[in-house]
Amino acid sequence: MTDTERVAQDDAAQVAAVRVELGDRSYSIMIGNGLLDAADSYRGLPAASHCAIVTNEMVGPLYVDRLAAALTGLYREVHLIVLPDGEAHKNFATLQRIFDALLSAHCDRSTTVFALGGGVIGDLAGFAAASYMRGVPFVQVPTTLLAQVDSSVGGKTGLNHPLGKNMIGAFYQPQRVLIDLGVLRTLPDRELQAGIAEVIKTALVADADFFAWLEIHLDALLARDAAALRHAIGRCCEIKAAIVGQDERESDLRAVLNLGHTFGHAIEAGLGYGEWLHGEAVGCGMVMAAHLSSAMGLLDVDAVGRIERVVARAGLPVRGPALGSDAYMALMRRDKKAQGGEIRFVLLESIGGATLRAAPDELVAAVLATCTSGVRS
Amino acid sequence: MTDTERVAQDDAAQVAAVRVELGDRSYSIMIGNGLLDAADSYRGLPAASHCAIVTNEMVGPLYVDRLAAALTGLYREVHLIVLPDGEAHKNFATLQRIFDALLSAHCDRSTTVFALGGGVIGDLAGFAAASYMRGVPFVQVPTTLLAQVDSSVGGKTGLNHPLGKNMIGAFYQPQRVLIDLGVLRTLPDRELQAGIAEVIKTALVADADFFAWLEIHLDALLARDAAALRHAIGRCCEIKAAIVGQDERESDLRAVLNLGHTFGHAIEAGLGYGEWLHGEAVGCGMVMAAHLSSAMGLLDVDAVGRIERVVARAGLPVRGPALGSDAYMALMRRDKKAQGGEIRFVLLESIGGATLRAAPDELVAAVLATCTSGVRS
Repeated sequence: MTDTERVAQDDAAQVAAVRVELGDRSYSIMIGNGLLDAADSYRGLPAASHCAIVTNEMVGPLYVDRLAAALTGLYREVHLIVLPDGEAHKNFATLQRIFDALLSAHCDRSTTVFALGGGVIGDLAGFAAASYMRGVPFVQVPTTLLAQVDSSVGGKTGLNHPLGKNMIGAFYQPQRVLIDLGVLRTLPDRELQAGIAEVIKTALVADADFFAWLEIHLDALLARDAAALRHAIGRCCEIKAAIVGQDERESDLRAVLNLGHTFGHAIEAGLGYGEWLHGEAVGCGMVMAAHLSSAMGLLDVDAVGRIERVVARAGLPVRGPALGSDAYMALMRRDKKAQGGEIRFVLLESIGGATLRAAPDELVAAVLATCTSGVRS
Repeated sequence: MTDTERVAQDDAAQVAAVRVELGDRSYSIMIGNGLLDAADSYRGLPAASHCAIVTNEMVGPLYVDRLAAALTGLYREVHLIVLPDGEAHKNFATLQRIFDALLSAHCDRSTTVFALGGGVIGDLAGFAAASYMRGVPFVQVPTTLLAQVDSSVGGKTGLNHPLGKNMIGAFYQPQRVLIDLGVLRTLPDRELQAGIAEVIKTALVADADFFAWLEIHLDALLARDAAALRHAIGRCCEIKAAIVGQDERESDLRAVLNLGHTFGHAIEAGLGYGEWLHGEAVGCGMVMAAHLSSAMGLLDVDAVGRIERVVARAGLPVRGPALGSDAYMALMRRDKKAQGGEIRFVLLESIGGATLRAAPDELVAAVLATCTSGVRS
């Protein structure tokens, strides 16, 4: 059976909805096969004369015609904004291209912005929607597994600064998240694996049973088994919706979703954005965080082994690049979770249970020595 | 009696507080003499190790030492960010300078940003605070009359795009607004007059009695009489707080505060930002809006005369530059209040009563012919 057949085998008519409860900013995450083309997907969105689809050069050619066809009946004008692909373009220059296009097309304050793409497109289009005329409606249409299970849910938007990742942005909730499972058919393997990193992360911080399920069904996910993908995506959205509903603007509770991200952001910034995929850096960062949790006496070594094995089986790196301990520390001190220069790590007390802690520099250095592929002179 | 003596004559100990009620985003506007130096002004702000003062090259040398001295006891590090002065700098390049400075100084997610200056500084520093690490605390310390009566209250932040004014920004409420009446002593006359434009506007859209008071006390305001300034600023803050409390994100109610701004923004953009002061453009724009209200049969001609006389007595322009009717129309169609290409004007049904309406192009053209100083060939 080919991957495409596996996905097609799934019941196309089944649509799940997960609600993110945030008072007057509440919204639904719709999950199903073929949602791009279904009229129900767009029902109840704010009325407007214009909409704009923001996408990139990779995903645009695959799906933009279907989305545009669905929107043509709903909006008088459908504008298309195609950006270059990749994390290296998640910056001010690309953001400005969106604003220039919206203004040149005379998009007004009711114009609805659709983000069709992965995490980079969602972050950029979301921040553009948050800031254009001080905020216009916005719909996430995530096309990568990573965006479907993590970045499209919860309203984090933003861009990178040369001095740090996601340093500029807004908490800005979409009107809706449309997760069409069918689009995963065309996702490159490396991107699929990067998405699985965030699935593993979600299980690790919140749900031991889900982690145990992952240990059993990881190969099915890697083979794009439709039922396995549907379950994993649905469970991640449920967990994230529950956390975001309690802590939209990331006090401590939501911060646990950053497991692996302090180390991971340092890897991404240290190598230059785009060298490793975000999910790859998070995969490796989770292994580092597990080792640090163990070194702090919080987590037993068996759990560290289980985590490292799952990350490795997902095809993700378990050893970081040899940036040197000092470079890692300097990069991590710039992390948004740092306070007054003290790095706050998301650590594990168990599989399924996370905590936010500072850690002694010497333990962090020891973990970096263990978990990187060598020390640069 | 000199202007300085008039202001000093005011009771320095008297501090008024106006509350802006916005649920968990509520805050106080404190109004008094010498607030910059008073410990009470800063009590109860969020705890943090860092703060940053954003100011400009004109106002910084006058007041930043006093603000920094007051903050030094409250924050471990006080960073100073000095920007060039003027509306022409309310753009992305200047915003980036703020982000670069905050990141270089290792400012974290609790860093409090103080905006010390007029409307441009408040808009830029406010948008920077809204976007830095997805939002840090922010305090407005307005130093112009315009900022004290209007732009520092209500959470509108943003910057200009070559294709339109305030096109990029956020609704982001400050933690507090500190209005030190003493700083008006050093305000240039032209800036004082520009501020009075927004005072007139506030009266026109909401309070006929306040407008009548202005007709009587305009000369006292122009002479910087302390009691007159205190009354006018306090009343403007009360009116604006009440409106913002009901309509934070500008549905129709708050939009009436844009009286004169559709014409005014066209003047500013058409001449190039900074050529006319914002308040000057609004002053002229209100006269145009009054004439249009009359042409639409909404407002009687006596009221138009009263409005034009007060604007002229305040030293503000009552005739617009000769950009040509087509240029005005094109610029106004880009206004944020436009919907689907239709311009929505704030018009007056009476002094103290505003409404939001579309207007026939030919009436707008006729008003432009009457209210500009000639037609460009």
